[in-house]
Amino acid sequence: MNVLIVHAHPEPQSFTAALRDQAVETFRAQGHQVQVSDLYAMGWNPVASADDFTQRENPEYLVYALEQRQGVKRGAIAADIQQELDKLLWADLLVLNFPIFWFSAPAMLKGWIDRVLVSGVCYGGKRFYDQGGLAGKRALVTVTLGGREHMFGDGAIHGPLEDMLRPILRGTLAYVGFEVLPPFVAWHVPYISAAARQDFLQQYRQRLEQLSDDQPLVFPRLAQFDEALYPLT
Amino acid sequence: MNVLIVHAHPEPQSFTAALRDQAVETFRAQGHQVQVSDLYAMGWNPVASADDFTQRENPEYLVYALEQRQGVKRGAIAADIQQELDKLLWADLLVLNFPIFWFSAPAMLKGWIDRVLVSGVCYGGKRFYDQGGLAGKRALVTVTLGGREHMFGDGAIHGPLEDMLRPILRGTLAYVGFEVLPPFVAWHVPYISAAARQDFLQQYRQRLEQLSDDQPLVFPRLAQFDEALYPLT
Repeated sequence: MNVLIVHAHPEPQSFTAALRDQAVETFRAQGHQVQVSDLYAMGWNPVASADDFTQRENPEYLVYALEQRQGVKRGAIAADIQQELDKLLWADLLVLNFPIFWFSAPAMLKGWIDRVLVSGVCYGGKRFYDQGGLAGKRALVTVTLGGREHMFGDGAIHGPLEDMLRPILRGTLAYVGFEVLPPFVAWHVPYISAAARQDFLQQYRQRLEQLSDDQPLVFPRLAQFDEALYPLT
Repeated sequence: MNVLIVHAHPEPQSFTAALRDQAVETFRAQGHQVQVSDLYAMGWNPVASADDFTQRENPEYLVYALEQRQGVKRGAIAADIQQELDKLLWADLLVLNFPIFWFSAPAMLKGWIDRVLVSGVCYGGKRFYDQGGLAGKRALVTVTLGGREHMFGDGAIHGPLEDMLRPILRGTLAYVGFEVLPPFVAWHVPYISAAARQDFLQQYRQRLEQLSDDQPLVFPRLAQFDEALYPLT
């Protein structure tokens, strides 16, 4: 299996980085191929802009998705995007590894999503959800956060974490066709002991060793909707 | 009323920019003060990092929220952040004006949220939701998107748009204390006629003229939870 880990944390010694390293080690020990995109270390540019295209379909007016579609066809997409796209297409499993900032991904990682999941390859027209361009691949979201587990869930103060992560789990990963596995969550990280952190690392290793047993989350399938995307009853 | 419009779109001539201009004009015609942060035009840096602090509480290990708390107290926070924070504190109404990228904000705007909503001022300890640091202010999210209205809502292919926007509406704006108004949404924008766009601009003007009548969305209040943030029954 080919694994791409996309990691985004502003502190190189973070516990989130330890989770990244645990994943690399565990996957390699199982004989998988692993690539890591460490966005902060790479100085990744998260800003989607006209500069992402060396040639423009319409130089007067930027429709970003349209330029992505044309750009990737004619090799006119920025080199840093093409590199990440190549890794993504190579991967059987994508791991997004990040600390929760505002109940979502840090801008650094959001900008990887904005720029790398190009229209025309990852989605387009009726190619989304189970028909998405990356169908057949799996994705795992691995997050650290400050909150405690009891602050999330039905009736809890922040509601279910998976509801907060909906734009990523459903609106992004499932949208482009990934089978999305339940997220791995390390709770209350800034406040816990070194031993508690070791426990999370060990839980993570065990989870990754048995990842093939995981049941993906359930999302809409296009066959449930008509041509105009109204629900079939 | 003081209004801050934070605008993020990679195309200066976009319809999203026309909505921004409509808002500026409508608010000024009502006698309100308006400031605009046009993040692409400003070359805003969306990446939260150690560079955001001229002095560090802990130079060995970055805990971003902790450095925000200390940095804003001792004037050691980057000038571009402090400027935006000053505008935010000045504002009675915050308008986030953006195109939906992946069912959420473009990285450019996410990075404004990551960097400007500083811990210690906007939230901290038990100061969140109705007790948040920005309580007493209102916020409006104004978005453009490619999808059609019937693709959103209960039973629709993408579910309710407000569920997709939950990390922004609830996890960010409500979290720091804003009264969050129902979003203004311009649907299917890349595909509609100039006349249909004019209709959206006019609907937007009318909405903004009567904004004081708007009922905010309902979110948790801290009084519904105990000291450890377990729900009171």
